Amino acid sequence: MSKTVVAIIGCGTIANSAHIPAYLANSDAEIKYFCDIRKERAEQAAEKYGCGIAIEDYRVILDDPDVEAVSICTPNHCHASIAIDCMRAGKHVLCEKPAARTYEEALEMQKVQHETGMTLNIGVVNRFNTGVNIIKKMIEDGELGDLYHVYVSFRAQRSIPGLGGDFTTKAVAGGGALIDWGVHFLDIVMYCAGDPEPQTVTGQTYCKLGKDMKNYSYLNMWAGPPNYEGTYDVDDFVTAMIRTAGPSITVNGAWAQNIGVDEMYIDFLGDKAGIRLQYGAEFTIYSAKHGALLESTPKFTKTDHFRNEINSFLACVKSGERLPSHIDTVILTAKMIQAIYDSSDQGREISFVKEGARA
Amino acid sequence: MSKTVVAIIGCGTIANSAHIPAYLANSDAEIKYFCDIRKERAEQAAEKYGCGIAIEDYRVILDDPDVEAVSICTPNHCHASIAIDCMRAGKHVLCEKPAARTYEEALEMQKVQHETGMTLNIGVVNRFNTGVNIIKKMIEDGELGDLYHVYVSFRAQRSIPGLGGDFTTKAVAGGGALIDWGVHFLDIVMYCAGDPEPQTVTGQTYCKLGKDMKNYSYLNMWAGPPNYEGTYDVDDFVTAMIRTAGPSITVNGAWAQNIGVDEMYIDFLGDKAGIRLQYGAEFTIYSAKHGALLESTPKFTKTDHFRNEINSFLACVKSGERLPSHIDTVILTAKMIQAIYDSSDQGREISFVKEGARA
Amino acid sequence: MSKTVVAIIGCGTIANSAHIPAYLANSDAEIKYFCDIRKERAEQAAEKYGCGIAIEDYRVILDDPDVEAVSICTPNHCHASIAIDCMRAGKHVLCEKPAARTYEEALEMQKVQHETGMTLNIGVVNRFNTGVNIIKKMIEDGELGDLYHVYVSFRAQRSIPGLGGDFTTKAVAGGGALIDWGVHFLDIVMYCAGDPEPQTVTGQTYCKLGKDMKNYSYLNMWAGPPNYEGTYDVDDFVTAMIRTAGPSITVNGAWAQNIGVDEMYIDFLGDKAGIRLQYGAEFTIYSAKHGALLESTPKFTKTDHFRNEINSFLACVKSGERLPSHIDTVILTAKMIQAIYDSSDQGREISFVKEGARA
Amino acid sequence: MSKTVVAIIGCGTIANSAHIPAYLANSDAEIKYFCDIRKERAEQAAEKYGCGIAIEDYRVILDDPDVEAVSICTPNHCHASIAIDCMRAGKHVLCEKPAARTYEEALEMQKVQHETGMTLNIGVVNRFNTGVNIIKKMIEDGELGDLYHVYVSFRAQRSIPGLGGDFTTKAVAGGGALIDWGVHFLDIVMYCAGDPEPQTVTGQTYCKLGKDMKNYSYLNMWAGPPNYEGTYDVDDFVTAMIRTAGPSITVNGAWAQNIGVDEMYIDFLGDKAGIRLQYGAEFTIYSAKHGALLESTPKFTKTDHFRNEINSFLACVKSGERLPSHIDTVILTAKMIQAIYDSSDQGREISFVKEGARA
Repeated sequence: MSKTVVAIIGCGTIANSAHIPAYLANSDAEIKYFCDIRKERAEQAAEKYGCGIAIEDYRVILDDPDVEAVSICTPNHCHASIAIDCMRAGKHVLCEKPAARTYEEALEMQKVQHETGMTLNIGVVNRFNTGVNIIKKMIEDGELGDLYHVYVSFRAQRSIPGLGGDFTTKAVAGGGALIDWGVHFLDIVMYCAGDPEPQTVTGQTYCKLGKDMKNYSYLNMWAGPPNYEGTYDVDDFVTAMIRTAGPSITVNGAWAQNIGVDEMYIDFLGDKAGIRLQYGAEFTIYSAKHGALLESTPKFTKTDHFRNEINSFLACVKSGERLPSHIDTVILTAKMIQAIYDSSDQGREISFVKEGARA
Repeated sequence: MSKTVVAIIGCGTIANSAHIPAYLANSDAEIKYFCDIRKERAEQAAEKYGCGIAIEDYRVILDDPDVEAVSICTPNHCHASIAIDCMRAGKHVLCEKPAARTYEEALEMQKVQHETGMTLNIGVVNRFNTGVNIIKKMIEDGELGDLYHVYVSFRAQRSIPGLGGDFTTKAVAGGGALIDWGVHFLDIVMYCAGDPEPQTVTGQTYCKLGKDMKNYSYLNMWAGPPNYEGTYDVDDFVTAMIRTAGPSITVNGAWAQNIGVDEMYIDFLGDKAGIRLQYGAEFTIYSAKHGALLESTPKFTKTDHFRNEINSFLACVKSGERLPSHIDTVILTAKMIQAIYDSSDQGREISFVKEGARA
Repeated sequence: MSKTVVAIIGCGTIANSAHIPAYLANSDAEIKYFCDIRKERAEQAAEKYGCGIAIEDYRVILDDPDVEAVSICTPNHCHASIAIDCMRAGKHVLCEKPAARTYEEALEMQKVQHETGMTLNIGVVNRFNTGVNIIKKMIEDGELGDLYHVYVSFRAQRSIPGLGGDFTTKAVAGGGALIDWGVHFLDIVMYCAGDPEPQTVTGQTYCKLGKDMKNYSYLNMWAGPPNYEGTYDVDDFVTAMIRTAGPSITVNGAWAQNIGVDEMYIDFLGDKAGIRLQYGAEFTIYSAKHGALLESTPKFTKTDHFRNEINSFLACVKSGERLPSHIDTVILTAKMIQAIYDSSDQGREISFVKEGARA
Repeated sequence: MSKTVVAIIGCGTIANSAHIPAYLANSDAEIKYFCDIRKERAEQAAEKYGCGIAIEDYRVILDDPDVEAVSICTPNHCHASIAIDCMRAGKHVLCEKPAARTYEEALEMQKVQHETGMTLNIGVVNRFNTGVNIIKKMIEDGELGDLYHVYVSFRAQRSIPGLGGDFTTKAVAGGGALIDWGVHFLDIVMYCAGDPEPQTVTGQTYCKLGKDMKNYSYLNMWAGPPNYEGTYDVDDFVTAMIRTAGPSITVNGAWAQNIGVDEMYIDFLGDKAGIRLQYGAEFTIYSAKHGALLESTPKFTKTDHFRNEINSFLACVKSGERLPSHIDTVILTAKMIQAIYDSSDQGREISFVKEGARA
């Protein structure tokens, strides 16, 4: 079988730390292009990995019939337009999360996916995480009983990324902590709970701790250093409550907050058992039976979820198999996130329940 | 100055552990009646404390002009009717929390207070707690900056009281974890935040872990033992999000939940500093300045907040001073709690914002 | 209801630490006699507990029609004769473990129980232990899957009791570590596994570390101090393998052995899950599912198993209810222990399987 | 002195990790053939080590008078036939453990050894381990006193090798955990205890945790990955009790069991001292004297026991010296293992004691 020819669009952190190594480790793939509007980043990649052609205009890729699949690793504001162009040019697409800046953009991507039939997967990498999949299986098997609520906490004490850069500029990123971190947490909830339709969404976002950029105190900064001349107009805290066809969900998430320790976890609460998943780490199961309270800690073999994601993407390019990261599934999270932003703007709940449809 | 003559209506746990010892410790008060529909409880009190007359019908108190003040320590479903009768009979009233089973009952109590001019204070005892008052002062003084959010967590692993008894019977108690515990937590938030008007309230309550009474596993039970022939139709979990004229508030509260450790705290989150108050215990202040993150633990002299409450009540009976536990203030929490129950029933947000009044 | 009149025969350690306090704590019981052949021990008890008559001859009890129930707390060699005399005199009996020195004596006790119809329970107190009962329930409910093996370890580094006294004299105690400790461990196994019939028993007992009494090194000694003029002719180590109608069982037990730490536990091994019960303490559950290995630790409310045992005995004296500690059940363990001693003497396996009955 | 010409039959893991490097490191040896029925494995070896001829039929070796010695590293079902052919062709043989699948096959190998006079050593490599030899010496010198019991534990939580492959197929391997791991553990016991004759053997083997192959959960698998189309009909747990002319032995061994941590050790229990040997690692000595309990940890220079084994084999080929790994010694362990399997099949003890010979 011939190797799948791949192009990387956007050669920043996520491309270098996750996508590129995963493609190189897969013997069925071959990277033909490294593309970045900052040409030197594309060139550094080509040199470092000893393969591929460095380019700065992704339209070269559109015109090259060899390329079957692309990874889009650009800032969020380019996701929709590049993904759409790639699909129209007959390329299969793995686009980093979030799908896009807004639900409207994401719907446009989905529409083109349906028109072209090309693969469009979003980088919701936790769907390829072993621990997350065990939790999903436990919920499906009824081990938690009725999963009635999920509490999502992604509150950091000081973790605003690149103050004044792409991440903190709404026109580029579409939002802050909610769209950047919340998308992962809400995606895990949706995946494990069986992707239930959202019904009502209320939320409030706040632009607080990073706003006065010069007086923002922190210990270290990812995607830094700060650019005090830049823009900071995104949410650094979000609180929300969501009703779905399955469990209700409450959310507290912050890139920065005046708390004591980071609280990054998801509580899946069922009437038979509950699970606390420490994000990116272990999980613990809490249950009760025969008058005793049980605390259970699973051990399992960890695998690299980025490798799993890329391997699955490459396999589905060949097989046409539909992955759990398909745009049709991920669109629900985009809808919820958009509704939280809208609810915050309007100061009231957004409802997706048709009038007269309530029990 | 002559002693204030007092009557105790309801001689259960809260009367014996808090109200009676506090009256006995105050040299300006004298207990004339112990009243309980279970006569033996009244008699035990009279015998134990060596004072007072044991009665089973509180109308004796209404007819006795000596009595100036009463403490109502009955189950919730008697709060409104007894308080109203007492005020109409010219007695000052300290009524245990919650004010009543429903907002409607509480409004009726407030109305009679306004008509009669008698004191009507509710047992929101945390308003007489030293630590809580320090937090309130810090917020007023701006030490937290803009207090934009409060997260309220009162989640216990296994703490359903008296399964099948008064606490778990809606007709008696009006509700479960929310009305019994939530009233204290929300009251602290309202008090510290300056009693801001609620604007929108959405919430969902669940009757889950205690429902199958015989299979409810627990380590010990307050107000027990269980009565498996009794009723269990109240909420053992509540989640809610509230917008107010001040901070937004999210709430997760449970008498029982499949979690690992009890999480009983309130996070006051400002843009200058945040405070975590461990319920009934210490609080810690988190802030940042000059590139450093600060964690501060205040030490202060603790006093018995029940004694403070009773002493203040006795003083205001004489002076006519308005206390922070006045029904006019506490009514806001009753409104919020009612709105959470209503929102849960209707599956949508309850709004107190007039149409056209939004920014 | 009138109180049950009780007599205590044998006023040593187990009577004072367990039986007597449990009777005193039960408002339905009244101790009329404290009996001990060492009269001063009976008198000390009567004085200490402020009740009862001190006697040295248990035949006084047989002749007193008031006495309904007796606790036999003597050394092992008196169990059978006293229990038999009591039953024949119309008394209900709770006899400390082991039932007797030999299986033959135990069978005689059982025979008289059947003839007289009086209660005869043996002090297999772990059958009234909360943790043990949870394990039994889990096994019954199939949570361990097929329970195919149980490994029993009761190996102490240095714990020979009263060197040269009753415990180490075969004519008095019937045996050593096996009959004194093993009876508890094997009883737990039998109880949890549903009292399966033993099929084959092979074992070897050793009289080793205490034999040279003067050179026995130890840190402290229960039931001591040593009597170097006394006898030491019992087993301080036993190893055995037993096939039953349920799981197979292997046993390693020692009052003293040249090991590093005491190893006092039972491993219940099923094909779905396994449990390690630390004797007298916690237990942990080990299982596997969905590719993960699970370690679960239950929390539960501990109760005093001696109180449970005495309360159950008093209740069954009134109700005639059959307890799990009935001689008919406990006799199986006596049979197994006898077979281990016999197997050791003969150097070969003892079989209870009828010829021609094997699969 | 000319180099000893050697052939390797079977070029799998044990050949590559142990035998071949040890021959290459010995300047008195020269490898002439790499033989494997999978020709490519033989070729890879020849290429990797830069010497030898790759063949797939071991009869080439039989016909080559140059070859003096062979290492047999094939799966167990070929051990007997190849070893016999080699001896009959005048070759000295080092055959990997176990000697064969059954005692009968092993006896046949021994018979041919006696007929031909060629060396036949079995790969009981622990007999060439420094620590094991120190323990043997201590026992011989009486430092443990009377060695009355040995407890053998080789219980792993999850370590079934190559599910569905050679290891788990009885027709190939002869058995599972007992024949694969137990052979090493029992061999250490026999070696250290002076190879005492077995007298009675009772045991039970179980095929449990791996049986439902698809639902077997594990963290990693040696000799994997699993072949779900293959066979799983061997023991994954064995329990046994053995009486010998020396100490009694109890055994609990599992490739997989629902326990918390692997327990891989041997307890040598004497009346003066005891030793716990952690398999493949350290050992500790426990004793007591002058009222004190002693724990002693010896330090010694470790050597590579595979090199020692091969060097000794090469030396004895020249000298005719009898090694401790001679088939005449190792046959006893084969006898014991066979008896455990037979006892398990028959559900009763196997006795090697002549009637009338018991004390």
